[in-house]
Parts: sequence; structure tokens; C-alpha cells
Amino acid sequence: MFLKPLPTGSTRIRCCCSSKSVDPLSQSQKNLSSDLEYYGCIKQKLRRTQGYKPRLVFNFSTVLVIIDMLKTPDHQVAGHEAGLGKLGPLIDDSGRFYKPLQSDKRGSEEVAFYESFSSNTNIPEHIRKFFPIYYGTKIMKGSTGSDHPHIVLQDLTSARLNPSVMDIKIGSRTWAPEASEAYIAKCLKKDRESTSTSLGFRISGLKVYICDESGFYKPDRNYVRKTGPDDVRLLLRNFVSSNPSSDSETGLGPDCSLASSVYGGPNGILAQLLELKTWFEDQTIYHFYACSLLFMFDNGLALKGGGSNAEVKLIDFAHVTDGNGVIDHNFLGGLCSLIKFISDILAETNDYTGTNGQVEL
Amino acid sequence: MFLKPLPTGSTRIRCCCSSKSVDPLSQSQKNLSSDLEYYGCIKQKLRRTQGYKPRLVFNFSTVLVIIDMLKTPDHQVAGHEAGLGKLGPLIDDSGRFYKPLQSDKRGSEEVAFYESFSSNTNIPEHIRKFFPIYYGTKIMKGSTGSDHPHIVLQDLTSARLNPSVMDIKIGSRTWAPEASEAYIAKCLKKDRESTSTSLGFRISGLKVYICDESGFYKPDRNYVRKTGPDDVRLLLRNFVSSNPSSDSETGLGPDCSLASSVYGGPNGILAQLLELKTWFEDQTIYHFYACSLLFMFDNGLALKGGGSNAEVKLIDFAHVTDGNGVIDHNFLGGLCSLIKFISDILAETNDYTGTNGQVEL
Repeated sequence: MFLKPLPTGSTRIRCCCSSKSVDPLSQSQKNLSSDLEYYGCIKQKLRRTQGYKPRLVFNFSTVLVIIDMLKTPDHQVAGHEAGLGKLGPLIDDSGRFYKPLQSDKRGSEEVAFYESFSSNTNIPEHIRKFFPIYYGTKIMKGSTGSDHPHIVLQDLTSARLNPSVMDIKIGSRTWAPEASEAYIAKCLKKDRESTSTSLGFRISGLKVYICDESGFYKPDRNYVRKTGPDDVRLLLRNFVSSNPSSDSETGLGPDCSLASSVYGGPNGILAQLLELKTWFEDQTIYHFYACSLLFMFDNGLALKGGGSNAEVKLIDFAHVTDGNGVIDHNFLGGLCSLIKFISDILAETNDYTGTNGQVEL
Repeated sequence: MFLKPLPTGSTRIRCCCSSKSVDPLSQSQKNLSSDLEYYGCIKQKLRRTQGYKPRLVFNFSTVLVIIDMLKTPDHQVAGHEAGLGKLGPLIDDSGRFYKPLQSDKRGSEEVAFYESFSSNTNIPEHIRKFFPIYYGTKIMKGSTGSDHPHIVLQDLTSARLNPSVMDIKIGSRTWAPEASEAYIAKCLKKDRESTSTSLGFRISGLKVYICDESGFYKPDRNYVRKTGPDDVRLLLRNFVSSNPSSDSETGLGPDCSLASSVYGGPNGILAQLLELKTWFEDQTIYHFYACSLLFMFDNGLALKGGGSNAEVKLIDFAHVTDGNGVIDHNFLGGLCSLIKFISDILAETNDYTGTNGQVEL
């Protein structure tokens, strides 16, 4: 019996992959029932408290119960979420992220992108670090309990303790020129209702760790999506503040106390965005429509005055198209706009000098 | 009598402002008729051969014939053109360009932009050179013969001999977010039918001087507007070639023999575009929707191996809006795309090294 006791009330369970193999020939009917009842309780508890989706697998000669530690991601802030009868991403405890293939061509196109990107020798090594590691595809029990193909990726937040995360969809246009009229109309409406058209990007979601007692500041997704330019500026400031929700509670603005360690410096988010920008000014391989930038940092570390371990990743490639020798001016324009917002915050907080997005090292 | 004889067959007439004042009391009816007939002939000839729009003004006591040397621009390649009963820009011989105010709010908005830009102390001096000098507005006889308000600007080609000119509308989107639904729909259709959406810019027109015998290569506007990405690449190559129309005549491609002196070098078009780009990465004052970049150079000089006197100007500001603290990501994205096209041509013609739009000086 390799199943570790389940800690209650913890925010995260660290378990090794556990299994129980039961030989019915060596067990009485009563014992088997007892085992199944035990795992049923665990399964309910996991599902209720931690979002785990354990699987029960019955074989002919054995009853094999696998609790493989698949769970919904702790730090997802945007995109499709797993729910009752709804497919959504899962993670395991070995640092992998399982993204269900979307049913229409988006799923196959995202796989096609990862396959192409993985094997493309024209991608510089220093650019690969901005993309999740791709481990292929796998047909597996999804969050709905039935078999479904998944893209297996690196779980970007697995090695982080209390990460703050923000998802920003880049580009003033989220549709490719060759998309269908119906899809273009749908996207155009969303782009115009959000800040995509006006700012060249929109915040899709964010989650900011405050402290163990207060937990996370995580504004409602619908609110985030409907924000205007001033709200976007505020959310980008909230993201690097020790009091991200202070504006609504006290009337005071966010303190931006972490701006320097998260946005600034030679390894900060701004420096990484500028590295990406240089590549986008030249690369004509892909056009990244409706793709997001994920900002992450370890708030616990940053609040203690250590490094923030800030990182930028690109995610969501269901609408990537061939660049055909033209740069991705739509992504690049939005990226430059975001860079200006971040530069402005750094300038305001006196952790930055210069103009035109040059980082003070 | 101050009217200079009209040279025939010349490509450009250099006249001082001429007028003839005729006092009917001192002239016989026969002489007056003769004079009017004479000026009628000149007027027809000017109109037919040179595009001049001389005006005949009859007063009560005098017959005053003014040939004020207003004419349609020689080197206009895009935009509204003066025609029979159609308002269009005029130039005079002192280097001024008279642009009729458009009848709807576009006219007043273009004036508002020039007034704002002229007085804005946040515009760096090295950026002002990219804009035509603004001399105010003037109500004057337009190309239709009736009074109309005009914006008086610097005539950008007046000091050039046989200039080659290209007009490129920048931005994948030519409409501002706050425009009317009808206007957005109209622009979106044009943007998608042209290369605006796919490349982030579209060529609106061009004219390339070949030699005195052959005159100019000036492809049809409708053809230019409907081009695809490959045609755009070809037109950008044609612009700096001594054989711009060779592809259709001989099957050979354009030689790009002037790429180095026009696009390259420390004062070339690429260097100027990069200077503009740096400003656009930072400026949040204006958003330049449906604005064009005008490329100009003196082909005669360049063919003789001298400097090309290449110049980039921004024109057409009827749809400029307030930047509201956000960079013009739409213009910047298109500008970066155009920079990549130009850099590629320079790289192909071995007059350029490096990546990311850095100019080899």
C-alpha cells in the first residue's frame, strides 16, 4: 500500500504517484468492498478539497486502483477550466501539464505548431526558453472522466511557491486574415469590447499572492476582461504590489513595491520582453494570433527581498499561422505597447531611467 | 505684359507669378477680344499639357487676367486628384502645396492635427523634419474654380528634379476604435482586400523616374492597391531599380541598383525609418490612422552615382486621434514590417549586414 496519508487543509499536496494492486483471489469479497469504499472516500475528498481527478481502473483479474495525482492547475488564471463535465487542463506531480485538444481544428493546429516549433532549427536557443517544453500528445482520461487526446507540456508553475501569475493576450487583432467570416466577426467584437483594439493587448486574468493569511488577490475574470486602459495600468501595478487589492479597500493605490525586482533589472520581465521584441522584429516564421504572454514570479521570495524569479512565457498556440516571410506586426505592435506600460511603471517608481524601453542594468 | 513664353515639350515649367492687367478704357474691343483669345489659348494649352489651372477674373471696370501658376502636382501618386469639377491639391511655384479641406469632419480634423502638432513642444526637433511644414489655411479658388478652404503646406517635391515617389499607407488597421460602424466596415473591407491586414501597410501609389526618353514608371493605382505580398516586395525593389518596368517587358527582375544609395547608408530611407521607429516606441501623443509615409529621392542624381537625396515624410492626417498615453502600436507594427521588407532588399543586394534592422554605416 503506497498511498500516503492525505493532509487536510494544506494548500498543496506533495505525493508520489501511488497505486494499489489487489488480487481478488487472495482477498475476500468483504475486503475488496472495504478497499473500494476507502478509495471512493479518498476520491471524493480529493475532488472536493484539492481538485484531484483520481481514476479507478477495473481489470478482469485484478482491481487496479490508480490515484495518479492528476489535478486541476492551482494557478490557472485564464482559458478553459476543468469543471463538472467540462474538459480543462490537468497537471500531475512530476511537472507536466495536460491540455485537452480542442475539438475543432484548433486542437490539431496547436499540436501542429508544437511539432513544427520543436523541430525548427531556425528558432534561436535563447528564444526557446520563452516556450513551454513540449512532450507530445497522449490519449488519457480527461477531467470529464472519459478518454481524450491531450497535449503534454511543461507545467510552468510547478516549481514555484506561491507564484503570482498574469495572462496577457497579445495583439490588437486576435484573428488571422484567412479565418472564416463568422470567426472574424466574433473575435472583432471581443477585441473591440476589450482593450485589444485600443492597447494592442488585453489582460485575460491574474492572481497575486499577498501572504499566507490573506491568500491571493484574484479579480473576477469578467471584470478583468472588460477593463479599460486605466484599469489595465492599475492591474499591471497591482501585480507588483504588496497591497494589490488596496485600492478598493482603503482608497490607496497599489505600492508597486516589487516593481524593481519583478519588472526591472537584467533578468526582470521588461528585459525578457525586450529580448522577445528583438526576435519579433526579425522572425517571419510564425504569426501568433490570440497567443498569450504569461508573467510569473515568486511573490514569497520577492517580499523577503530576494530575487523574484520572474519569468515570461508564451502560451496558447491554437491560432498560430505561417508567417510567409512577413514579421508578426500584430503581435509586435501589442508587445511594444505592453513594454511601454511596464517601462512607465518602472519610471514612476524610480527604478528605471532612460527612454525607449532601455533597461537600466 | 509679364507672361513668359511657354516652353513646349518641357517636363516642368519654371515661371514666376505672372499677371496681365488690361484697362478696357485704353483698349479697343478688338484688342480686348484678342487678349482674351490669347489667354484662352494659353489656358487650354496649360491645362492640356501641364495641368495648370489659370484663373480668369472679370471685374467691373477692368478685365484682369491672372495666371497665378497654380497647377496640379506633377508627382502626386495617391490621394484625391484634381479633375474636371473635382477638388484636388494644387501647388504653386514658390514651393507651397494647397490641399483642399475635405468636406466632412476629416478636413477640420486634419487642420486640428497640424495646429496641434505645430504648437506641441513635446515633439522633438529631429522628428519635425518628417512632417511637411504647415503654413495655415487659406480660402482660395480651388481646382474646381470656386472658393474653397485649403490647408497650405510645404510642397515636398518642389526642389527635386525627376523625383521618384512612393506613397505607403501604414497600419494594419486604417480606422480608429472610436470611428462610426459604417466607416469601420468600409475601412475593414479595404484593409482586408489590400495588404494592410496581412503586411501592416499597403502601397497606395508610386512613380519611378527612368530617364528623359522613357519618362516615368507609374503602375496603375488600382493595380497597386490590389497587390499581394509578393507584388509589394517587387514594387519596393522596382522603386530602387534602373529598370523598374523590366519584369513585364523582358522577364528579368528589377536590378535594385539604387538600393544602396536610396534605402541604405546613414542618411538613407532605412536609417530614417529606424529614427521614426524609435520615436513611435515611445510617443503616446498621437495615433496616426490611415496616415502615409512618402518616400522620395532624386533619381537623376542617384543614377549618376551621386547621393540620392532620399527622404521620408509623413502625410495625410485626417484620421489622427489622441494617443491618450498609449503608443501607436498599429502604426509601429506596420512600420516595423516595412522596415523588415527594406532590410531584406538591402541584405539581398549585399549592401547591408546584420539583423534586426540595424543599418550598416
